[in-house]
Amino acid sequence: MNTSSPRIGILGTGAIGGFYGVMLARAGFDVHFLLRSEFAAVSAHGMRVESAVHGVIQMPLQAYADAADMPACDWLLVGAKATSNAELAPLIAKAAASDCKVVLLQNGLAVEESLRPLLPGDLHLLGGLCFVCANREAPGVVRHQAFGAVHLGYHSGPQVNAAERQGVVEACAELFRAAGIEAQAMANLAQARWQKLVWNVPYNGLSVLLRASTSALMADEQGRELIRALMAEVVQGAHSCGHALPEGYAEHLFAMTEQMPDYWPSMYHDFSHQRPLELAAIYAEPLRQARAAGCSLPRIESLYQALAFIDRHNLPAH
Amino acid sequence: MNTSSPRIGILGTGAIGGFYGVMLARAGFDVHFLLRSEFAAVSAHGMRVESAVHGVIQMPLQAYADAADMPACDWLLVGAKATSNAELAPLIAKAAASDCKVVLLQNGLAVEESLRPLLPGDLHLLGGLCFVCANREAPGVVRHQAFGAVHLGYHSGPQVNAAERQGVVEACAELFRAAGIEAQAMANLAQARWQKLVWNVPYNGLSVLLRASTSALMADEQGRELIRALMAEVVQGAHSCGHALPEGYAEHLFAMTEQMPDYWPSMYHDFSHQRPLELAAIYAEPLRQARAAGCSLPRIESLYQALAFIDRHNLPAH
Repeated sequence: MNTSSPRIGILGTGAIGGFYGVMLARAGFDVHFLLRSEFAAVSAHGMRVESAVHGVIQMPLQAYADAADMPACDWLLVGAKATSNAELAPLIAKAAASDCKVVLLQNGLAVEESLRPLLPGDLHLLGGLCFVCANREAPGVVRHQAFGAVHLGYHSGPQVNAAERQGVVEACAELFRAAGIEAQAMANLAQARWQKLVWNVPYNGLSVLLRASTSALMADEQGRELIRALMAEVVQGAHSCGHALPEGYAEHLFAMTEQMPDYWPSMYHDFSHQRPLELAAIYAEPLRQARAAGCSLPRIESLYQALAFIDRHNLPAH
Repeated sequence: MNTSSPRIGILGTGAIGGFYGVMLARAGFDVHFLLRSEFAAVSAHGMRVESAVHGVIQMPLQAYADAADMPACDWLLVGAKATSNAELAPLIAKAAASDCKVVLLQNGLAVEESLRPLLPGDLHLLGGLCFVCANREAPGVVRHQAFGAVHLGYHSGPQVNAAERQGVVEACAELFRAAGIEAQAMANLAQARWQKLVWNVPYNGLSVLLRASTSALMADEQGRELIRALMAEVVQGAHSCGHALPEGYAEHLFAMTEQMPDYWPSMYHDFSHQRPLELAAIYAEPLRQARAAGCSLPRIESLYQALAFIDRHNLPAH
């Protein structure tokens, strides 16, 4: 790895991969983007990030339609949905330099665990939680409404020494910071993932169940009660699995959501485009882990069952 | 009251009032129907019940647009939604003979309690639970798909002696039986209402939440789990309020629903016609009573909160 100028690959150039990748490219990093449906649009016109924070960024990208064409990358940021991780594994193997650090910028639990057995052993696997309001407006166009912080943690790989693992995570945080992104190294990735669920479990699911954006949910007294009750169950589930979340964390996210611009969570976009919902990582796996720890989460379970029904009836017929 | 030929009034001639009223009229009873939006259609063409059990019944009705025009009735069957009980009280007072028996053919809890203070003291108030698959197809047309049994109980009125109260309930059951309807006198109206909720709470709410009929819900493994879990909470709520439901009652209703023809519950029709949902009687009041008894019903509460949100966003703008 060339530490002075690491080569960064972006797999899954939707809202997350597009936003962070463009921010890194704008900062002067050598960034390579793997695209599928948007390859033609991005090759022709570059990528456009319309950011309420950073202004409009329009720039040409080093774009690829095939992972085999990409140069070997020192870092691979995975912004694709957790529902497609099995398909991603061979692409990661193709685009990774030896000793590559792969960062899963995905929500939910067990995303690293399910991908790890499919990856070469010499790759480092990290997880990243993105606190960002961004969505894909059109092919090659990402709208960034607010926030952007990333919480990073080490999952597994050749680095077994705790201090050295922390060094890899810190190096990753430095990349983001160099691109103007707030980044935080988390000592415990599993806990960081539970923390992020305190937001994702209520807002992602309810946006689909009630076809409602954050502002509509927060403007309704019973919507608020439901959100608070779901958040409390996530905190309870995390606790049952040994993760004591910071005091007042749910209230903090609730208040933050009240302040932020109106937002349609990513699960709603998946629903409205008839894509599979990320239910395994965000609902089924947390429920399973809590249940294994003897903890019942009836509100989350009901929400999950309702979403699973909706998901099955929402997918396009084959 | 003329016991040999009681005069029966039907208030709220939708699916429930229309079906039972026409069955009673067909059996030779003197039945008078109060109608609103359907008055013109029914005056011109009579009422048509398309029954999978009793065949097609098409007959002219004694129809009224104004309760003041109705003759004094010995029995008043109320088939209107529980959401309109406050408006119904003055109509009941107009159409009732002295010593009239008013039967609320409505689902949910506290429907008699909220209406009672608005009624003259000499009226008997009964409750009836209708186990019937029926819906209004068009003005003056009711489709009856299956079942029809009515469970009846005494609520309040001048009859204070328990045996005499039971006599009034039996007389009511006899009316229905004379019209070919299975009818059962229930010693405990409150318990009968909780029993009926074991069906209404899951199927009514989920039909709206998931835009799904009974067959679609029952064909989905997670739909089934959700229904069973909601049923179990209703049984638990009933128990907390002192009503031990019959052993295996939830399983019985679940199996019955599996056998019956595909059905869209009444709450779905209210939703699709942008009418207010009967959430107070079917959800809020059971939750309140269980809570007062120290019992938390988290799945029902989440469902109620979601439905309340949907209801508020579904009503037409004024």
